Amino acid sequence: MEKELSVAVYDNLFTINNLWILISTALVFIMHLGFASLEAGLTQSKNTINILFKNSIIPGIGLLTYAFIGFNLMYPGSDYAGGFLGFSGLWIHTDVSGLTKDYNMGYTYWTEFLFQGMFAATAATIVSGAVAERIKLSSFLIFSTVFVAISYPITGMWKWGGGFLDQLGFYDFAGSTLVHSVGGWGALTGIILLGARKGKYVGNKINPIPGHSMPLATIGVFLLWLGWFGFNGGSVLSADPAAVSLVLVTTSIAAAAGGIAAAFTSWLYLKKPDLTMLLNGILAGLVGITAGADVMSPFEALIVGGIAGVIVVFSVIIFDRLKLDDPVGALSVHLVCGIWGTLAVGIFGQLAGFDQLINQFIGIVSVGVFTLVFTYILWRLLKKTIGIRVSESEEYEGLDLGEHGMEAYPDFEKLV
Amino acid sequence: MEKELSVAVYDNLFTINNLWILISTALVFIMHLGFASLEAGLTQSKNTINILFKNSIIPGIGLLTYAFIGFNLMYPGSDYAGGFLGFSGLWIHTDVSGLTKDYNMGYTYWTEFLFQGMFAATAATIVSGAVAERIKLSSFLIFSTVFVAISYPITGMWKWGGGFLDQLGFYDFAGSTLVHSVGGWGALTGIILLGARKGKYVGNKINPIPGHSMPLATIGVFLLWLGWFGFNGGSVLSADPAAVSLVLVTTSIAAAAGGIAAAFTSWLYLKKPDLTMLLNGILAGLVGITAGADVMSPFEALIVGGIAGVIVVFSVIIFDRLKLDDPVGALSVHLVCGIWGTLAVGIFGQLAGFDQLINQFIGIVSVGVFTLVFTYILWRLLKKTIGIRVSESEEYEGLDLGEHGMEAYPDFEKLV
Amino acid sequence: MEKELSVAVYDNLFTINNLWILISTALVFIMHLGFASLEAGLTQSKNTINILFKNSIIPGIGLLTYAFIGFNLMYPGSDYAGGFLGFSGLWIHTDVSGLTKDYNMGYTYWTEFLFQGMFAATAATIVSGAVAERIKLSSFLIFSTVFVAISYPITGMWKWGGGFLDQLGFYDFAGSTLVHSVGGWGALTGIILLGARKGKYVGNKINPIPGHSMPLATIGVFLLWLGWFGFNGGSVLSADPAAVSLVLVTTSIAAAAGGIAAAFTSWLYLKKPDLTMLLNGILAGLVGITAGADVMSPFEALIVGGIAGVIVVFSVIIFDRLKLDDPVGALSVHLVCGIWGTLAVGIFGQLAGFDQLINQFIGIVSVGVFTLVFTYILWRLLKKTIGIRVSESEEYEGLDLGEHGMEAYPDFEKLV
Repeated sequence: MEKELSVAVYDNLFTINNLWILISTALVFIMHLGFASLEAGLTQSKNTINILFKNSIIPGIGLLTYAFIGFNLMYPGSDYAGGFLGFSGLWIHTDVSGLTKDYNMGYTYWTEFLFQGMFAATAATIVSGAVAERIKLSSFLIFSTVFVAISYPITGMWKWGGGFLDQLGFYDFAGSTLVHSVGGWGALTGIILLGARKGKYVGNKINPIPGHSMPLATIGVFLLWLGWFGFNGGSVLSADPAAVSLVLVTTSIAAAAGGIAAAFTSWLYLKKPDLTMLLNGILAGLVGITAGADVMSPFEALIVGGIAGVIVVFSVIIFDRLKLDDPVGALSVHLVCGIWGTLAVGIFGQLAGFDQLINQFIGIVSVGVFTLVFTYILWRLLKKTIGIRVSESEEYEGLDLGEHGMEAYPDFEKLV
Repeated sequence: MEKELSVAVYDNLFTINNLWILISTALVFIMHLGFASLEAGLTQSKNTINILFKNSIIPGIGLLTYAFIGFNLMYPGSDYAGGFLGFSGLWIHTDVSGLTKDYNMGYTYWTEFLFQGMFAATAATIVSGAVAERIKLSSFLIFSTVFVAISYPITGMWKWGGGFLDQLGFYDFAGSTLVHSVGGWGALTGIILLGARKGKYVGNKINPIPGHSMPLATIGVFLLWLGWFGFNGGSVLSADPAAVSLVLVTTSIAAAAGGIAAAFTSWLYLKKPDLTMLLNGILAGLVGITAGADVMSPFEALIVGGIAGVIVVFSVIIFDRLKLDDPVGALSVHLVCGIWGTLAVGIFGQLAGFDQLINQFIGIVSVGVFTLVFTYILWRLLKKTIGIRVSESEEYEGLDLGEHGMEAYPDFEKLV
Repeated sequence: MEKELSVAVYDNLFTINNLWILISTALVFIMHLGFASLEAGLTQSKNTINILFKNSIIPGIGLLTYAFIGFNLMYPGSDYAGGFLGFSGLWIHTDVSGLTKDYNMGYTYWTEFLFQGMFAATAATIVSGAVAERIKLSSFLIFSTVFVAISYPITGMWKWGGGFLDQLGFYDFAGSTLVHSVGGWGALTGIILLGARKGKYVGNKINPIPGHSMPLATIGVFLLWLGWFGFNGGSVLSADPAAVSLVLVTTSIAAAAGGIAAAFTSWLYLKKPDLTMLLNGILAGLVGITAGADVMSPFEALIVGGIAGVIVVFSVIIFDRLKLDDPVGALSVHLVCGIWGTLAVGIFGQLAGFDQLINQFIGIVSVGVFTLVFTYILWRLLKKTIGIRVSESEEYEGLDLGEHGMEAYPDFEKLV
């Protein structure tokens, strides 16, 4: 009887934990709407359908490829070879053992798949915004499929699947490197191979191309912040009260600090309080805290997030000077602040120390090099074969008519 | 002491279960915003206020009628007569027994009411989109009130209240038939009696009337997918880790498969990747898996959802050829895929078998016949008395000015 | 062993409770997006960036000031002096004792901070809408910072921190007075000192200035209703099934009743079913039930919410006649219905009685007087120093260009 009771007590804990990871999954899912809204809002109305199409199909592509290949590449179990690569077979499957607390005290097999699958798809979504307004739909879809199916899970396994970076001591709580910088590197190679949008850089002049709907962009950022409650909170992998509550406090304080820092930096430096900088600052703070959300105090989170907010403003300006045309600021938010957040784990918080900083550096570089090479080759192959850029006339007319034969706002007079 | 401890353990489980159903309720609630956004996005800007008004008042009407009548019609307890009809009195009420685990291990009486009440209102919302852009507001409100108060709970009782379909062995996990096809049948009779929007069908020509905001439509579909985490996940009626996690995996995989299948079907068949088809494909997958989300494997969910995604594209085309004017595709998504999903339980998954398929068929037909007759009479009565269609001039000018004396976007130049 | 088991059982309960408060925190967070959408939707497109900027930075300002000062002013523990004022030091901090169930069976120290911090920021957001379309950004930001850092926590302590109103027997479950009327009083003094928007009142004529996007306003109200699941549901401060489920039922029924009552009141009185009245009626019902959501039956909630829905319509009309220009109806929703809801605790429900009514009245008046005086002095100081109103030409041109140098919808032709 006492034994039975004891089983019931641990079953309850398993049920609570699993529930939190499932709720976190729903929150991470809503980040896809956040990205869709943000990217649509920050680009021109003539390319809105195209953005929405990409961001609406990516969660599907992400989930299905993750079910077919990705999950078993990223979490191959004891089958991986030497810490660099492993694969435990096609398609997700489990017997009853995957559905009890014997699998894991925090979640069932199905929960783990769904939570990780929702994560996986975000990496492709990050690329979507950076290459917007000129990429060919078919090429983007092929890129995303291969990227989420193969590239993301391989580097993910290096740390979260127990691979060589995990053995080394590299730390990345919820993916400043494994998710955000991975998306950022894929975006960078895409931007380089695609080139800038027509008219963005003329000689030494930078012509801003403003986004068409600031309410959409704002909705996007709020939904991303909301989603981060699950992205970081769920990464605790249980509902442990102390851990989850600390993580949500550090996450929210970093977002707050990032937003305020970016707003005032832009106010001082650009003379006007810039809404898009405020929004990107919030995201910068969130990306920045993601690697160490569980090992920082709230005050350290304030500093890490605040620095991310300053970095993102100058990063946006510098990428523009480098003529790397990133319509939504994805490189600055996800790549630069992803790197910053990963390094911050070696500088602030419980793990801070020179050795850790070196490990963080090794993690950033190894994941970066792999992803750069992988995505460069992939974009390159696409460019050689079906092409990656729409025609100049289609770019001028808009991808909505060119790729989809539809308009996003057919009832309204347009200026452009 | 041990006995006390044992009570506390089961109290904890009750608390977890109840919490999940309440969170699911919040998720189902947000589906109303999903429907509002989707329907507003897929219709013209001159009818936007009207759509928003309907979809904002329906949750209220749904909840209040369900509190007054519906809940006690749908869950009459042992008082029902012969499995077809029962009623346990006006207004919701309970004593302390409804608030403990003696009522149900999964939820309190109040939780059950609120979860089911949020469900009930969705059936009316499905109708809203189908009859949009030409229906008289007052008639729609009366229709919705009677539909949610009486028609929906009666057929709902047949299965979920322990009525004759339940005794027969009909299976409908979360409402492919009881919610979605019910809404669809009500929409069908409405569309037949209302007729098409002016200018939609001229001779044999079908003139598409594009929706005015694709971002709104996309926001709607994402919120609906999110809401389905609660719609299907909460229908487990507990937080059981194995069951809930499987249901959320099958639900999400069906949504993914439906979206991708519809996108590529439209790409092949209509030559362009159509955003609205992708969006409706996601919903088709979700509606399709709803009847059997807990008895399918993820792979079977992939097939059921994928087939739903193909069906929805051709269904939209066929309804248009039949001159059944459904501005948002509600018939194809909710009625056709609701039927498909219900039948699928007899074809795939744990319950598959010829006998089950017959039971599914009987359930579809009996619910369909009742709802068709009920709603036909109701629409007919409204048509004879106060009328169901706005005047031609009001339809031309838009229902926003005609019914509400307001405009949705007064600051912007319009083309139409 | 039995003792160990007993600890584990209570740890589980602590974990469930804490999880619910964290989820509630996420829901309250999304209310900030609700306010942003609602306020942007109900104002002109030329002031949209300004609204979005304010509402995107307020959660950040709110959280950080609450971390530095507010939390320790509002919950000073045993250090408060005489029930009127207390302070337990700068910045949030705790040792391990704050992370276990010894701190509180319902939540950790971090959870409490984050939940209360999200609440705090909403008070400033309420002001934002009322003073929209003419307030200087810098003044608003300073006002909000001081308001959330000092004024809100002091009156909050009087009840929730165990101060004199708590000792008196004043009841305010989730903040009809402490949050909503506090925001409302700050809005009232702001409106008085700012004056109306140019052209709103010309002689005795009231010129309506319609909001620019009804979909945005509707999205806002749905998100606020969703957020109220956490605002009221989390205020139970545990996941107790009976209490939380009752609170969510009374909350939703009051929202439903408020919306329907306002819709039909406007239909009768203004001759047209007014969408903004429906939306404000939903909010009125929510604000009205907030003080007593846990002590009302569902039927009493119907009455309290319904009355709030009627009140809000006439209140909007009366404030307009008084030439108090409130673009979004914040005074009617948050101040008037906040007062109504607080009084309703003395009229309906478990606590009803003359003594309670007097206590409610004392609470309303004391919080009101303090907030009126505090905010009047604060606005006055700002007016004397940096000014609180933009120039007439900036108001005409729009604050988006004037304050931010950006446009919210640069692609579209505008009528205004």
